[in-house]
Amino acid sequence: AEVAAIVELKKQLNGITGEDNKNKNKILLKVPKGTRDYNEIEMAIREKVFSTIISVFKRHGAVTIDTPVFELREILTGKYGEESKLIYNLEDQGGELCSLRYDLTVPFARFLAMNGTQSIKRYQIAKVYRRDQPAMTKGRMREFYQCDFDIAGNFDPMIPDSEVIKIMIECLTELDIGKFTIKVNHRKILDGIFEICGVPEEKIRPISSAVDKLDKSPWKDVRDEMTNEKGLDPIVADRIGEYVKLKGGKDLLEKLYQDQKLCANKNAKGGLEDLFLLFKYLEVFEVLDMISFDLSLARGLDYYTGIIYEAITEHSGPPTLEDGTKVARKLKKDSDEFDETTIGVGSIAAGGRYDKLVGTLVGRTNSDIPCVGVSIGVERVFSILLQKYKPEQVKANEVEVYVIAVGDGLMEDRMKVCAELWNAGIKAEFMYKAKPKLQPQFSTCDRYQIPFAVIIGKDELDIGQVRIKDMRSKEQGGGGGSSVKRSDMITELKLRLGKV
Amino acid sequence: AEVAAIVELKKQLNGITGEDNKNKNKILLKVPKGTRDYNEIEMAIREKVFSTIISVFKRHGAVTIDTPVFELREILTGKYGEESKLIYNLEDQGGELCSLRYDLTVPFARFLAMNGTQSIKRYQIAKVYRRDQPAMTKGRMREFYQCDFDIAGNFDPMIPDSEVIKIMIECLTELDIGKFTIKVNHRKILDGIFEICGVPEEKIRPISSAVDKLDKSPWKDVRDEMTNEKGLDPIVADRIGEYVKLKGGKDLLEKLYQDQKLCANKNAKGGLEDLFLLFKYLEVFEVLDMISFDLSLARGLDYYTGIIYEAITEHSGPPTLEDGTKVARKLKKDSDEFDETTIGVGSIAAGGRYDKLVGTLVGRTNSDIPCVGVSIGVERVFSILLQKYKPEQVKANEVEVYVIAVGDGLMEDRMKVCAELWNAGIKAEFMYKAKPKLQPQFSTCDRYQIPFAVIIGKDELDIGQVRIKDMRSKEQGGGGGSSVKRSDMITELKLRLGKV
Repeated sequence: AEVAAIVELKKQLNGITGEDNKNKNKILLKVPKGTRDYNEIEMAIREKVFSTIISVFKRHGAVTIDTPVFELREILTGKYGEESKLIYNLEDQGGELCSLRYDLTVPFARFLAMNGTQSIKRYQIAKVYRRDQPAMTKGRMREFYQCDFDIAGNFDPMIPDSEVIKIMIECLTELDIGKFTIKVNHRKILDGIFEICGVPEEKIRPISSAVDKLDKSPWKDVRDEMTNEKGLDPIVADRIGEYVKLKGGKDLLEKLYQDQKLCANKNAKGGLEDLFLLFKYLEVFEVLDMISFDLSLARGLDYYTGIIYEAITEHSGPPTLEDGTKVARKLKKDSDEFDETTIGVGSIAAGGRYDKLVGTLVGRTNSDIPCVGVSIGVERVFSILLQKYKPEQVKANEVEVYVIAVGDGLMEDRMKVCAELWNAGIKAEFMYKAKPKLQPQFSTCDRYQIPFAVIIGKDELDIGQVRIKDMRSKEQGGGGGSSVKRSDMITELKLRLGKV
Repeated sequence: AEVAAIVELKKQLNGITGEDNKNKNKILLKVPKGTRDYNEIEMAIREKVFSTIISVFKRHGAVTIDTPVFELREILTGKYGEESKLIYNLEDQGGELCSLRYDLTVPFARFLAMNGTQSIKRYQIAKVYRRDQPAMTKGRMREFYQCDFDIAGNFDPMIPDSEVIKIMIECLTELDIGKFTIKVNHRKILDGIFEICGVPEEKIRPISSAVDKLDKSPWKDVRDEMTNEKGLDPIVADRIGEYVKLKGGKDLLEKLYQDQKLCANKNAKGGLEDLFLLFKYLEVFEVLDMISFDLSLARGLDYYTGIIYEAITEHSGPPTLEDGTKVARKLKKDSDEFDETTIGVGSIAAGGRYDKLVGTLVGRTNSDIPCVGVSIGVERVFSILLQKYKPEQVKANEVEVYVIAVGDGLMEDRMKVCAELWNAGIKAEFMYKAKPKLQPQFSTCDRYQIPFAVIIGKDELDIGQVRIKDMRSKEQGGGGGSSVKRSDMITELKLRLGKV
């Protein structure tokens, strides 16, 4: 409501200052808030990120599927807890009510339910949509890619779960984003803690949502939300506070297993036993040292039922002040957008087990298909990588040969030579000018770092020859290169390009 | 309106028969009308299609960009002529008014205008959205992929245009969809014809839209639309009719160039001269025999200003009756969907020159950036290819090695071996069961055509050995394979997989 008020005031202000008048007949040239274009350099980096992730997914035997960008609205309803208000709706233009997908998990579950698929290991890389407050430089956007890997099917406990965590680690390692940690927790342990602390059943999910904010807010604020906003007894909140501040490794797991009150709770005991098995498998995979068992990890979404996890880097949390306290989130002055210096990129990959989602969609619990998966937030990864690469180091254009004319343009001859190269599978271009000068043609090679030039001139063509010049060599200027028979041109170029 | 009425009646009918009641608490498990899922087999085919097209685009020096799936509504307004009513709007949930993109061309022009890009050769493969009547088996959908290639910049006439047509032909040839033809026309020739026939200026675009329907409707219906719906003088319509029935090659071009009345019109003369040059270049590219100069080709979109073209196959038009007349489009009984036996797949690629779109967006004609491009309708290509491939011939899963235990499960050992394979870049899986039987493990290899198995047993592991078995060989059953030292396993497998 505050945000809307600010927007409205700005509009009125524009009306008074006449700022709108100047641009009356002009279309506002921008992309919708929270979205962005990717230019060719950014796309070259993004494609490298995708191909790295896909190669990991395929190495683990995944196939891929695709689903529509929007779903029937009722499919998405009630799956995202407090976040549901962020769903984008399509306008009712007659026909079905639809909404843009909020994640790839619910559409995947819908796909499984619709097709009666009993078991699949699939990945999907696609855009999802959330009407959230954007922070573009932190990769927090309204349209963003998710790279999801999920394993559906009835399998022995913790085997797929440990493989999914292994996959998450392989992806982040190969993306080379620097040091990261995987926080792990279990919904059943959390539920058990809430139960033994005395949280009424109907408050378990809302209280869980509050706990989930501990990575960006101090305990005091979270406790406020629990007691004031959500009406929890302060004594109960304080009991929860004792548990959710715990983090550690196997040691913490063993300590909690000694907690008789906790282990008297069926949920908590089951969750702890799951984690023991998970840790054993992660040790076999030699990745246990990257894991932090963190009782404050809750995950916002409603559909998780088992282990949950989240990968964080040093960029994930909000900046800290000198005394170590976290900077509080703030809006920009006169704006409904966050001040980006007050927030972090958040988790860069996250997921968990959701055993009931398919059954919920089918409407029969005996149709449950257990699932576990991970989603890599590639925009956040991308925002980290963008700081690492310099744009001028990234080559977006893959042209291998530039066809250059000396003398009178030779338009049709350049076209003919280029067509020969294309037909042989060589990436080639020529200048779109009937009579280009020599120097601009050479400059183009330099600008786009095109490695080879085929240089044609009338006299040489008449005796069936062309020149091939390595443009990366020091030797520069108008001439140069070595003469080859026109009929040997393709063979010679393929040899030089390493295409044989 | 008719469609809405039918939908409403169906709702009422459901109300009466109580069909809705049975499913009261059940979510309708379907995708929105006009959209579809792609399973792993379909995706394997689709990825092959994309990689074929991308390799052609890159061979011609294209880079890629990405734009958001929705744009500010006013950017899309007034760009699509009669088709504008098919634009999907996002609901007004506060903030900017947005619509899903209708094509990739207007967003590309917006990108150029916003960034002041003077020249680029770019491709973009992404989904677009149209609230049209779907015909799913014909690849006519509400959500579908377009594969666009465009050249923006000030260049000498017809050079980029001829390359774009060459690219279109390379793509369709390499996609192996069978025989196809490229229909070519020029907006200026059409405008000239309309002018000399006596079409009032404000009716030129609507009359052009009517002509565009000649590929699916007989002249009689198109003439009706011109005279009754659009109020054109019947004498003018008949004059147009004489021209738009013409089709041919260079001969027709020469014949029209002799038509003094036509060539007295500046637009027509300019268009014909463009085509002469285009045909010369297409002859150099050795593709002129695939071109049909077709005066009935008009293209529906408003933004074209120069040459226009469209690729059609034998599947493009509606089915014909025995006497050669085209089957008329019909709705399915009691439905608002087309009877798919009455329509064709339409054009499978199309495009043209649009020199004014960027300037229109910037709001200054001196900011025009001339563009020419093509869009490949990959769903239509896909619907043709889907009939060609048998699902069982398509391998979606790329797993190379399956890790199998003989005896007591050896869960942790299978994991350890598998992790070794993954770390060496080998695609590998194992069964998600603590103690799997031997036969199901072998069956999995067969089902997914996994070429190799690594078989581990306790005794062999103890002496540091594993067995490698080629699963494609005739030799079957529980044993088999050749023993190798555990330490040589990776080297041996890489050798067999041709990875060295």
